[in-house]
Amino acid sequence: MQLHEPAIITIFGALGDLSKRKLLPALFNLWHEKMLPEQFYILGLGRGSTLDGFVEYARASLNEFSRRGVPTEEEWTQFSAHLRYLDGSFEDPTLHAAISTETSELMKGTSVPWVRMFYLSTPPSLIEVIAQQLHAAGLSGPKDRLVIEKPFGRDLESATKLNTSLLNYFDEDRIYRIDHYLGKETVQNILAFRFANAMYEPIWKRGYIDHVQITVSEEVGVETRGKFYESAGALRDMIQNHLLQLLCMVAMEPPISLDADEVRNKKVDVLKALRPIPPDELYRFVVRGQYGPGYVKGQVVRGYRQEDNVDPNSSTETFVALKLYVDNWRWQDVPFYLRTGKRMAAKASKISIQFRPVPHQMFPEKTSDHWEPNRLTINIQPEEGITVRIQAKQPGQKMKLRTVNMDFDYDLSFTAEPPEAYETLLYDVLEADGTLFMRSDQEHYAWSVVTPILEAWENSPSQDFPNYAAGSWGPEAAEALIARDGRSWHAIPVILPPAT
Amino acid sequence: MQLHEPAIITIFGALGDLSKRKLLPALFNLWHEKMLPEQFYILGLGRGSTLDGFVEYARASLNEFSRRGVPTEEEWTQFSAHLRYLDGSFEDPTLHAAISTETSELMKGTSVPWVRMFYLSTPPSLIEVIAQQLHAAGLSGPKDRLVIEKPFGRDLESATKLNTSLLNYFDEDRIYRIDHYLGKETVQNILAFRFANAMYEPIWKRGYIDHVQITVSEEVGVETRGKFYESAGALRDMIQNHLLQLLCMVAMEPPISLDADEVRNKKVDVLKALRPIPPDELYRFVVRGQYGPGYVKGQVVRGYRQEDNVDPNSSTETFVALKLYVDNWRWQDVPFYLRTGKRMAAKASKISIQFRPVPHQMFPEKTSDHWEPNRLTINIQPEEGITVRIQAKQPGQKMKLRTVNMDFDYDLSFTAEPPEAYETLLYDVLEADGTLFMRSDQEHYAWSVVTPILEAWENSPSQDFPNYAAGSWGPEAAEALIARDGRSWHAIPVILPPAT
Repeated sequence: MQLHEPAIITIFGALGDLSKRKLLPALFNLWHEKMLPEQFYILGLGRGSTLDGFVEYARASLNEFSRRGVPTEEEWTQFSAHLRYLDGSFEDPTLHAAISTETSELMKGTSVPWVRMFYLSTPPSLIEVIAQQLHAAGLSGPKDRLVIEKPFGRDLESATKLNTSLLNYFDEDRIYRIDHYLGKETVQNILAFRFANAMYEPIWKRGYIDHVQITVSEEVGVETRGKFYESAGALRDMIQNHLLQLLCMVAMEPPISLDADEVRNKKVDVLKALRPIPPDELYRFVVRGQYGPGYVKGQVVRGYRQEDNVDPNSSTETFVALKLYVDNWRWQDVPFYLRTGKRMAAKASKISIQFRPVPHQMFPEKTSDHWEPNRLTINIQPEEGITVRIQAKQPGQKMKLRTVNMDFDYDLSFTAEPPEAYETLLYDVLEADGTLFMRSDQEHYAWSVVTPILEAWENSPSQDFPNYAAGSWGPEAAEALIARDGRSWHAIPVILPPAT
Repeated sequence: MQLHEPAIITIFGALGDLSKRKLLPALFNLWHEKMLPEQFYILGLGRGSTLDGFVEYARASLNEFSRRGVPTEEEWTQFSAHLRYLDGSFEDPTLHAAISTETSELMKGTSVPWVRMFYLSTPPSLIEVIAQQLHAAGLSGPKDRLVIEKPFGRDLESATKLNTSLLNYFDEDRIYRIDHYLGKETVQNILAFRFANAMYEPIWKRGYIDHVQITVSEEVGVETRGKFYESAGALRDMIQNHLLQLLCMVAMEPPISLDADEVRNKKVDVLKALRPIPPDELYRFVVRGQYGPGYVKGQVVRGYRQEDNVDPNSSTETFVALKLYVDNWRWQDVPFYLRTGKRMAAKASKISIQFRPVPHQMFPEKTSDHWEPNRLTINIQPEEGITVRIQAKQPGQKMKLRTVNMDFDYDLSFTAEPPEAYETLLYDVLEADGTLFMRSDQEHYAWSVVTPILEAWENSPSQDFPNYAAGSWGPEAAEALIARDGRSWHAIPVILPPAT
């Protein structure tokens, strides 16, 4: 659906990596699908370039990263006519004055108000000063929207400070904190699955669910991001945002409506209900890991401490496993096991809901070689879909049970290619729909959960790093964490390359 | 699993159609899979033939109807060595004396007791006299089992009479009433699906289920069975047994175990709970139909009254639609809609469980073009499997819902070919497992349900027959029956032949 309000999309860091890989392709695709308003401009901001330089950069970006392939000459001509550029230092008031002049110029002659989006694809340290300068230059009015990327702070204190500061310049409902994970189709589908279907909600509770597992595993290591990662680690980089958000989607109560604040209120309820982890019993609830050298998909890869820009004695964790409880009526005593890591055996994001066994086993022992209670798996990647493991009768003269799958495969069911997360999110900002963005209280409570762990870890750096081989499923302690409860991590298939 | 007790399988009507198409191929396949005991004989009984004649008949039967294709020479030599034959009239005591002599001869020299199965593939009128003669000839001992085919009587009175009579000769637990429908894999899978999975039972009740539909439709007409069908009709031929049995499988409470009597007790509970149909309001609950000429899969076919051996003014119904209620805590006020007919648009057997809508609609109206509550469909044929219709988010920038399927396909999940119903059932008789057979009280209560309808119809023959065209989904009144409740029959896909 085409947006009606004219818009200027300003990108701080227009010549950066995110801009090239995600933002410019997403904007092009939105334009291509006639989702952008008829009147729009993309105002790139960078250092040491020109409009021509930015235009060339954008073209190279689309050629390489657009999911539609290389644009035609005509498409490119039309789209590139919307590009503008300003050069300058992001903290420099003269740049902000220039933005003000430029955008006023672009908006001239239109009677309707324009939306101005300021997308801060910059180091986190610049967020505050840019917001302040935008405000000073009169660029934080009712139609102006500030978009920032995680990390939002490093811990509860710094996040609170950043937030308090930002609120001096932009109202909360004009700040869009992006967790691109929330823009993924399958993540949004969790809402649809849970609340558009009457079949699952009645069993979506402690009486029927034994536990929940959330795994977000990566095959890649830190790649070129060693410097950034050294000061982040997996708890900040993944758990505080992506995994806790997935937990919220699974655990939340049904909202009254899909309104942004209704949905986010229900998520915040979950975060507030998370049982604090007792600092003196940390080991029972959290495991950290760091990868050493190993094999990933048959290739030898180096360990974390050998990566570029990483301290050879680094105590940064690249893996976290975590057990959480949600202290409310629905989830009391149902453990949520979370794990995430780099250089693991397979790339996967999935949530599995493990149901309890049948209350009474009427089938004789011998009817099943390996009895398995139901499990519902929400696959976020690589394949998107939902699978329910059920017991079915094996063909044959006698009652013999076997586990089989009921599948819903996103790709097979829908022919339309899903939009990329950034397309969804940029569109939502232009439409002022904050549902998929992090509200400041979400950030606050998420930091409240992880900060005590961060502090404990800082006070006692791990003695056993590296403690898992690249290409494994993490340290042994992560198995022990869940095994102590008589459970185990659900196997994740390793996908082999096509035979040659 | 090979059976241990040696057995003699006696077939009354060994040269008949059922023997050729089903019984002999089933016995061959059981033998081929080493399920039959090491020592066994198949004793064919017929009129006007010899052992050689029977052996030839059996060979032709396997060549044409075995699901394994033509047996090899070696297989045939081995298998045919087990065949025996006696010629005579089924009601003649001399035949029964000969059976006694022959079986004693075959069993000689073995210390363990033999199982003797007497399969009555004969007209229903002969059941009673054969049972009596078997008894008189000392062939109804503890290891002797009588297998009879439906119809078991024509109504409550005749069924009760037949049953009382049979019990003079055979104990109830030695009588196996075959409803071959119950031998089908998918029918048995209903038990596994319901009671080996903890996910569905909590919602399998009036609070969550709006109604249930059971459709068993045939494309064929009466074919060569006009004479038989004239005195039967769809209510006796299908509803009284197959469809009521399916209803029992869906509606029954969880049994304590899979023991034959536990399962059948729970089925009887359902039949006993069926709300009697008030004779003066029959039209609100039952619709009968008879096909006229029409098209089935593009071919012109004649009407029922034009079929061979059918009265040109016949008032026999070839279609029934029925609304039933199960008066118990679980199902109070949940209608069960049943329909079955010949010469319908597609061959299908399926049960669909229609769930209620979500209790609160949090998705705005515009998110869905056509909102559908969940529906769980158990497909018995042609494809075997289970499908759940769910709402999922359509890929795209905004929340938009569409109905998609979660599927479990029997064929795709299991590579082993399922046994035919008769293989399962014959094996069960030899193993003395009565689970899949009709107990006399099941028959009794099933007849109790349909007999008042039969009587009402006999008292007032339909004035509008034929009232549906061959190749349609039955008479308009069947649509009205369900439409009065604001519901409609669920569409059944017509499967086209492969493109040429």
